[in-house]
Amino acid sequence: MPYSEIDQLAINTIRALSVDTTSNAKSGHPGAPMGLAPASHVLFSRIMKFNPSSPKWLNRDRFILSNGHACVLQYVMCHLLGYQMSIDDLKKFRQVGSKTPGHPETHDPTLNVETGAGPLGQGIAAAVGLAIGKAHSAAVYNRPGFDIFDNSTFCFLGDGCLQEGISSEASSLAGHLKLGNLVAIWDNNKVTIDGNTELSFDEDVEKRYEAYGWQILRVENGDSDLESIEKAFREAVACQDKPTLINLKTTIGFGSQQQGTHSVHGSPLKPDDAVQVKKLFGFNPEQTFQVPAEVYDFYQKRVDENRAAQKAYDAMYAEYAKAHPDLYNQLERILNRKLPEGWEKNLPLYKPGDAAVATRKLSEIVLDALCPVIPELVGGSADLTPSNLTRWQGAADFQHPSTNIGSYAGRYIRYGIREHGMAGIMNGLAVYGPIIPYGGTFLNFVSYGAGAVRMAALNNSRVIYVATHDSIGLGEDGPTHQPIETFAHFRAMPNIYCWRPADGNETSAAYLSALTHDSSPSILALTRQNLPQLENSTIENASKGGYVLYENKNANVTLVGTGSEVSLCLEAVKVLKSEYNLEARVVSLPCWEVFEEQTESYRLSVIPDGIPAMSVEVYSALGWTRYVHEAFGMTSFGESGTAKQLYEKYQFTPQGVAQRAQKTHEAYKDTPFIRSPVRRAF
Amino acid sequence: MPYSEIDQLAINTIRALSVDTTSNAKSGHPGAPMGLAPASHVLFSRIMKFNPSSPKWLNRDRFILSNGHACVLQYVMCHLLGYQMSIDDLKKFRQVGSKTPGHPETHDPTLNVETGAGPLGQGIAAAVGLAIGKAHSAAVYNRPGFDIFDNSTFCFLGDGCLQEGISSEASSLAGHLKLGNLVAIWDNNKVTIDGNTELSFDEDVEKRYEAYGWQILRVENGDSDLESIEKAFREAVACQDKPTLINLKTTIGFGSQQQGTHSVHGSPLKPDDAVQVKKLFGFNPEQTFQVPAEVYDFYQKRVDENRAAQKAYDAMYAEYAKAHPDLYNQLERILNRKLPEGWEKNLPLYKPGDAAVATRKLSEIVLDALCPVIPELVGGSADLTPSNLTRWQGAADFQHPSTNIGSYAGRYIRYGIREHGMAGIMNGLAVYGPIIPYGGTFLNFVSYGAGAVRMAALNNSRVIYVATHDSIGLGEDGPTHQPIETFAHFRAMPNIYCWRPADGNETSAAYLSALTHDSSPSILALTRQNLPQLENSTIENASKGGYVLYENKNANVTLVGTGSEVSLCLEAVKVLKSEYNLEARVVSLPCWEVFEEQTESYRLSVIPDGIPAMSVEVYSALGWTRYVHEAFGMTSFGESGTAKQLYEKYQFTPQGVAQRAQKTHEAYKDTPFIRSPVRRAF
Ligand SMILES: [Ca+2]
Ligand SMILES: [Ca+2]
Repeated sequence: MPYSEIDQLAINTIRALSVDTTSNAKSGHPGAPMGLAPASHVLFSRIMKFNPSSPKWLNRDRFILSNGHACVLQYVMCHLLGYQMSIDDLKKFRQVGSKTPGHPETHDPTLNVETGAGPLGQGIAAAVGLAIGKAHSAAVYNRPGFDIFDNSTFCFLGDGCLQEGISSEASSLAGHLKLGNLVAIWDNNKVTIDGNTELSFDEDVEKRYEAYGWQILRVENGDSDLESIEKAFREAVACQDKPTLINLKTTIGFGSQQQGTHSVHGSPLKPDDAVQVKKLFGFNPEQTFQVPAEVYDFYQKRVDENRAAQKAYDAMYAEYAKAHPDLYNQLERILNRKLPEGWEKNLPLYKPGDAAVATRKLSEIVLDALCPVIPELVGGSADLTPSNLTRWQGAADFQHPSTNIGSYAGRYIRYGIREHGMAGIMNGLAVYGPIIPYGGTFLNFVSYGAGAVRMAALNNSRVIYVATHDSIGLGEDGPTHQPIETFAHFRAMPNIYCWRPADGNETSAAYLSALTHDSSPSILALTRQNLPQLENSTIENASKGGYVLYENKNANVTLVGTGSEVSLCLEAVKVLKSEYNLEARVVSLPCWEVFEEQTESYRLSVIPDGIPAMSVEVYSALGWTRYVHEAFGMTSFGESGTAKQLYEKYQFTPQGVAQRAQKTHEAYKDTPFIRSPVRRAF
Repeated sequence: MPYSEIDQLAINTIRALSVDTTSNAKSGHPGAPMGLAPASHVLFSRIMKFNPSSPKWLNRDRFILSNGHACVLQYVMCHLLGYQMSIDDLKKFRQVGSKTPGHPETHDPTLNVETGAGPLGQGIAAAVGLAIGKAHSAAVYNRPGFDIFDNSTFCFLGDGCLQEGISSEASSLAGHLKLGNLVAIWDNNKVTIDGNTELSFDEDVEKRYEAYGWQILRVENGDSDLESIEKAFREAVACQDKPTLINLKTTIGFGSQQQGTHSVHGSPLKPDDAVQVKKLFGFNPEQTFQVPAEVYDFYQKRVDENRAAQKAYDAMYAEYAKAHPDLYNQLERILNRKLPEGWEKNLPLYKPGDAAVATRKLSEIVLDALCPVIPELVGGSADLTPSNLTRWQGAADFQHPSTNIGSYAGRYIRYGIREHGMAGIMNGLAVYGPIIPYGGTFLNFVSYGAGAVRMAALNNSRVIYVATHDSIGLGEDGPTHQPIETFAHFRAMPNIYCWRPADGNETSAAYLSALTHDSSPSILALTRQNLPQLENSTIENASKGGYVLYENKNANVTLVGTGSEVSLCLEAVKVLKSEYNLEARVVSLPCWEVFEEQTESYRLSVIPDGIPAMSVEVYSALGWTRYVHEAFGMTSFGESGTAKQLYEKYQFTPQGVAQRAQKTHEAYKDTPFIRSPVRRAF
């Protein structure tokens, strides 16, 4: 179908609304929306499959704005297409409580925001995750005549996204996995915040993506050659065995007097320039937020076609329910965010006297038990499978079938040595629908992926990081691999559960928590070294986040530990008695965030008034004074040596703990009232 | 010179020692050292310029082992070449207190470890930094007849380094900057921990690096074709306007029965395999750590040639001192880690009543004042120059001269949107010698570079992160850009100074601290919004890390703030008086780490016994109970809106602070003895 004046009018309307929205807010980024208006118009009017009345339609094409600062483009498109986005919402751009925050957020289910974006590079990694999600879901659920999953994923990205390392990691893996239907549209406008890309970015992006195994298409004139834009989109969607990069040459701030420069990137147009632009595009410069009626009509017709497509899909899906009831029921269960009936009965249980086992190995036992019964679990590791122990017995790899080393139905992803990419991809997997992702690396290298971990927390996504080798206890690899500050970092991050289990039952509890908190990510910190199975450690106790592991009504001090230091505290109790004639009680506190969810009276029963409490954890002690009076932790980086040598060097021994507990007792023994730190004034 | 039997014997000695060292330690990575032995032999015997008796020779060629797990190779070479590395040291591989930790560390100045490595990708980024350091230093200090700086930088790296995003970021910038004399040697052995690289990594690495603008060379047989290895090195060193990637095809664990598989990657050879290897290489399998005398002799001759080269260099350098005394004196001053006499007099001073200014702007004023007088300062930004305000007046860009937008003498680096790459490159700049690097990004995106920030702390490197837009106060960009957990993360990290200045004098103090703590990195968290100049804020006070900003002998409560919340606390004092009839005193605590260095009696004078203390900071409050009884902080991510709206929403207002201070007073008013949290039991 040829393009006509209405298309140009629609594009100019997008541009004018982008100018008005940012000018009205006195803040925001007009340049990229103005440059991307033509591609956006073509994409949403001719290519994409979606339904504004049913924004979460299972088989919708996914749209990701990786250059999230351009979000006014997405909001304007939402308005024009009939999503729940009014002109008033556009007028509240970047205001508290609005539907139109400064970067796309996922909190409003009526919009087409699949995942948060803004920190550059996150969007393209999430898009790779969405494309993996689609390939996997199609392999699992599609049947002849029933293409339950056959959507495409479109991702706009800017120069910044391409420069960020996470995009390299995710794009390299996407090429390896031969992900068809993944379409990345590079807004090649030669401008970044500092100025022209010649300042720092003159690599040959096309060649680089070819090196990753992508199909490369180019649109020389992305400002007005709508036919070429459409042709590129169609070729990209048709490509089944490669992701596609479209090099879309655009002019940032198209129409502005400052077009093509970084002046139009990050702040509204100057008032006289805005007037000039509006005139140029045929709008009355005295008025704002004008949308010609025929533009609404035009988009409405496109949307109606899409609605008809969804209707046909829904009919097909109803037939699917009859033809493949098991698959249908499983899918519906997962989409309703329910775990399989009775799944938690598969969690391994231990009793005191059972063999001492590393919690990474206990995690493997959990995965061996759960992965067969929870088909939505899709695991992986950033090339540390034999160390993380993340691959359950009988797992099959997620690989392109042509490789003969797996298939798209496989549920184990070989992420490669790409922690940030892995975490970003998991963010896409988590929101695709039928998948709960988990991924392994060393705890210290979760920090490499911190940017994406943060997005999971912001997105309210259930993503599980299996973080082994959780302390100096990993031993000989030395300080470059031994986390010190990592848990303080993630404990300080909102909406993420940080678990450090002490034994088998606590490891089972950690998975129980991670799987049932379906709007939050979780990090499971797991040891390399063996730990004993503790008395009083039960899934029920650990599921309170913290509990009394060893009670003593005459205690002079409460020792509070996590993970490998809980059994150490128990040893220290004996030394305190024999060498200092002091009594102690021991608390295990494997998850602060869950403990915070308990009542104050419960928390006071665990860490009571009247005696001082001391924490023992081989991390930076930062934060522990929230629960204890004195904190024993690491005050330096670790060293290379055996776990035993290191624990001795840093005095994490029964003797070292007891000495400090005695000092804690001494410091507080004359204090008339020892207030439990769990009491808070506000 | 043709290769002969002695070369092969030397190579086999390297391999046998690598086997022995890991077998003896029962831990470590023999595979990569065995595969890289030929390249290593050629590099150190024919190419590199170095002197084991003078390991820090200014013009030495730099060697970086980015695949740091292969460190046994570096230790073995150190031994054979005559560095202070005995066979006994090799026997202590991976033991506490040894010279031979599990990954290369910088703490031993007698070795050739330029920068720590191990977290994959860090080494190649640091190598780019070293190459920039050389290019810049040569442009500044070399004069006709005086090539003070003309070294090359060699970096071994593995598949893992290439997969990590940081290598993409740093390599792309290296190509842009046309860094000659930078030679990256890819140990292309087709194996990673999970197995064959076909599992996750089949991109075309040569093409990717071509896309970055690198010269590509290939050695088809890196196991034994020494002539081709040498030829590649020589071509690489000769290339003046491009960095070089050598695709060196090797066999991991060459000689082992398991060669070419991941079995030889991360653990010692099986005993019978070790016997077999020793036999294969002509060694007595009953003996360990054998070095034929002729191998020592051979390397000694090479080293003697190098010593002669240094002697000639030293003579030239002595002439340079006479011919260019100003340059010489400046260089010597910097290499001795002294700042210019009286430099600190240039630090800007403010008095109460001076205009309210954003601390990012105050930072710019500091840089405008210092950069002209401290020529070793080399700045930059990850494409946020107009926001970070990191480019001082009169700065010139560091660029290849052919670009006409700067020169190698320029001191301002356009890092592009590559935070992790920037931080990793700064680690190389910091250890090259004549440079103190600083780099800007938003505080929230320092987290993207956390892996490299950690290496700076581990390396004891003076690197300064200028981290603007430091809180929800940045406003409309919203939660994706607003740090919450960031400071808790870095406060928990050993050996890094985290500054959050409240006004102009505190900003000057932050720079004073960052520049004078020459064995630690520093992060300066700076506001986007304006802050008033405070009474009692002086450089001297702030240089104690914390001090009483507003004293009140009758105070009921101590309010402790940082940065933008200090002036808020002062406002809250008035509300506390007028609405609650309570008295308060105010403490500014801009740097915890410096405050910790003060005496306990000083700290008690700032946060005394007897009254409760409450902190006010718009971050996660995690950690604050180290100094205060109650902590007011953010308990969620922020939102998109104006700074004013957001401070109101989260109740960071005089009223909100006063309310919580009143509750704090209420909670503690009947406590018989209120112990200051700065008192510690141990
Ligand atoms: Ca751009
Ligand atoms: Ca390899």
